Amino acid sequence: MNTGPSRIAINEVGPRDGLQIEKAFVATDDKVALVDALSACGFARIEVTSFTSPKAIPALADAQDVMRRIQRQPGVIYTALVPNIRGLERALEVGTDELNLVMSSSETHNRANLRMTRDQSLAELVNILHAAQGAGVPCNVSLSTAFGCPFDGDVPTDDVLRLAGQLAEAGASGVTLCDTTGMAYPTQVAALCEQTARALPGMPITVHLHNTRGMALANAVAAWQTGVTRFDAAAGGLGGCPYAPGASGNVNTEELVHMFECMGVQTGVSLQPLLDVVGKLPRLVQREFHPPLLAAGHRLATHRPPAWLAERFGAA
Amino acid sequence: MNTGPSRIAINEVGPRDGLQIEKAFVATDDKVALVDALSACGFARIEVTSFTSPKAIPALADAQDVMRRIQRQPGVIYTALVPNIRGLERALEVGTDELNLVMSSSETHNRANLRMTRDQSLAELVNILHAAQGAGVPCNVSLSTAFGCPFDGDVPTDDVLRLAGQLAEAGASGVTLCDTTGMAYPTQVAALCEQTARALPGMPITVHLHNTRGMALANAVAAWQTGVTRFDAAAGGLGGCPYAPGASGNVNTEELVHMFECMGVQTGVSLQPLLDVVGKLPRLVQREFHPPLLAAGHRLATHRPPAWLAERFGAA
Repeated sequence: MNTGPSRIAINEVGPRDGLQIEKAFVATDDKVALVDALSACGFARIEVTSFTSPKAIPALADAQDVMRRIQRQPGVIYTALVPNIRGLERALEVGTDELNLVMSSSETHNRANLRMTRDQSLAELVNILHAAQGAGVPCNVSLSTAFGCPFDGDVPTDDVLRLAGQLAEAGASGVTLCDTTGMAYPTQVAALCEQTARALPGMPITVHLHNTRGMALANAVAAWQTGVTRFDAAAGGLGGCPYAPGASGNVNTEELVHMFECMGVQTGVSLQPLLDVVGKLPRLVQREFHPPLLAAGHRLATHRPPAWLAERFGAA
Repeated sequence: MNTGPSRIAINEVGPRDGLQIEKAFVATDDKVALVDALSACGFARIEVTSFTSPKAIPALADAQDVMRRIQRQPGVIYTALVPNIRGLERALEVGTDELNLVMSSSETHNRANLRMTRDQSLAELVNILHAAQGAGVPCNVSLSTAFGCPFDGDVPTDDVLRLAGQLAEAGASGVTLCDTTGMAYPTQVAALCEQTARALPGMPITVHLHNTRGMALANAVAAWQTGVTRFDAAAGGLGGCPYAPGASGNVNTEELVHMFECMGVQTGVSLQPLLDVVGKLPRLVQREFHPPLLAAGHRLATHRPPAWLAERFGAA
């Protein structure tokens, strides 16, 4: 098989994309502690929170407090989602390193999720991009439903590339291709990553994968094989739909790290400290779930053979 | 990314590898109905049962009854696991199309699982292969722990290739590289498949994957990229450890079929009839589990947009 870059960079999105849909409110202290623990794991980026209206996402109403109180580690970029100019102002007030803007690649998902047409969202995002440039803060743009829309089905590649191009033109510092509901498959991921890279030479491309249909890691490998080096992921696979535990969340950060490190690809992330964080997540979000790698451990975490073996066969 | 063959063949192992570790005894009628329902899905092969001692695996004590009573579909190869000459005789009495022999690539796993040294197992398998050849029945050989052993850790490639070579020499009609406890990772899978294909030109290679660490589908793609066309899989991801639901079983057949069909690779398997079978599995094995694809559906099984969209935006 063809291989990809020898080093990748992971953007841990659990504190934002994970916590935003949890029913239980996670106390500000606990959010800060979570981000601080993640900071010690070696991530390139952490998406700390979202500066959306507290009414729209009460779970992250404490966005400014969290961003103010985390202990920033040198080398980690602390980013946050910003949906509008008001959010931009709140984000800048607390010194967010980088912003992440979001709109959908498909019309119906954009309307359902953001309550705007794509044209309206595009105009809003261009405004934010210009304001952020004025403030000297880099802005990544995440394109939801880039690999398929749960309402519209397949999304034309031209729609994704056109939006990416317009947002790049307006000053986006990076583009994230999001598989919002886990509709992507490996050859499609490879094709869209290649087409985006060709259309926007030099633009950093991130892929944001969900594991809804089991393909998250396969899709990550496919993206990597085309040269993609940036991946969103959520510790414990948080995010997605909390009513289908283990099924619909973001790609598990720990599984992504484990796989790439097994393949000799540096992620910068230390697995054991990350697994320690993952182990505390069920209690943090107050629901039971079972991150598989937490139970299974590293592939080389070997077990002691049964005691009767030595009796039966002597020393191996 | 480099792509693989345009058609693959799936060996559904759920009735054997899945049911053998379930605590609940599945009634013979229900086993027969399961295999018959799977026969209608279009599999190349179905591993129906195991002719092990009923004392060792009581769950499959009715192996002969099941094999006698299933309705065989033309074009489907009905195979079964055979551990010894006694099992071979029982399998041949009921007209099993093909046999599957098993031993481990690693010494400690072979001792723990089969209670023999690898040399003893090899000798036994060679005996079975010769007897099966006398009877004109093809015999595949599955090498457990080919990608790592839960006791010994990494398994030297030379051990796998040496065993595969000796068993091919003795008349094996195919070799299955088994990731028994989900230790395989994509670049490793690709490398071992390539090395085995080079060492045994013309020998059909199957890969048998587990999803313990989330990499089953990524590993399947890696194998396919090297030209592998045969895959073991278990409907609903049965198998592995029943105490870690959803985490440690075989690769989900329905996810494997869905992914390859999305990529335009023909599997011969119809997804919807298979999902109908999967939906009945929790009741069949009398424990709750939630095959993700059953909940999520095909990637293009789109949803109706929320009703308020039309009011707010007019017709899309």
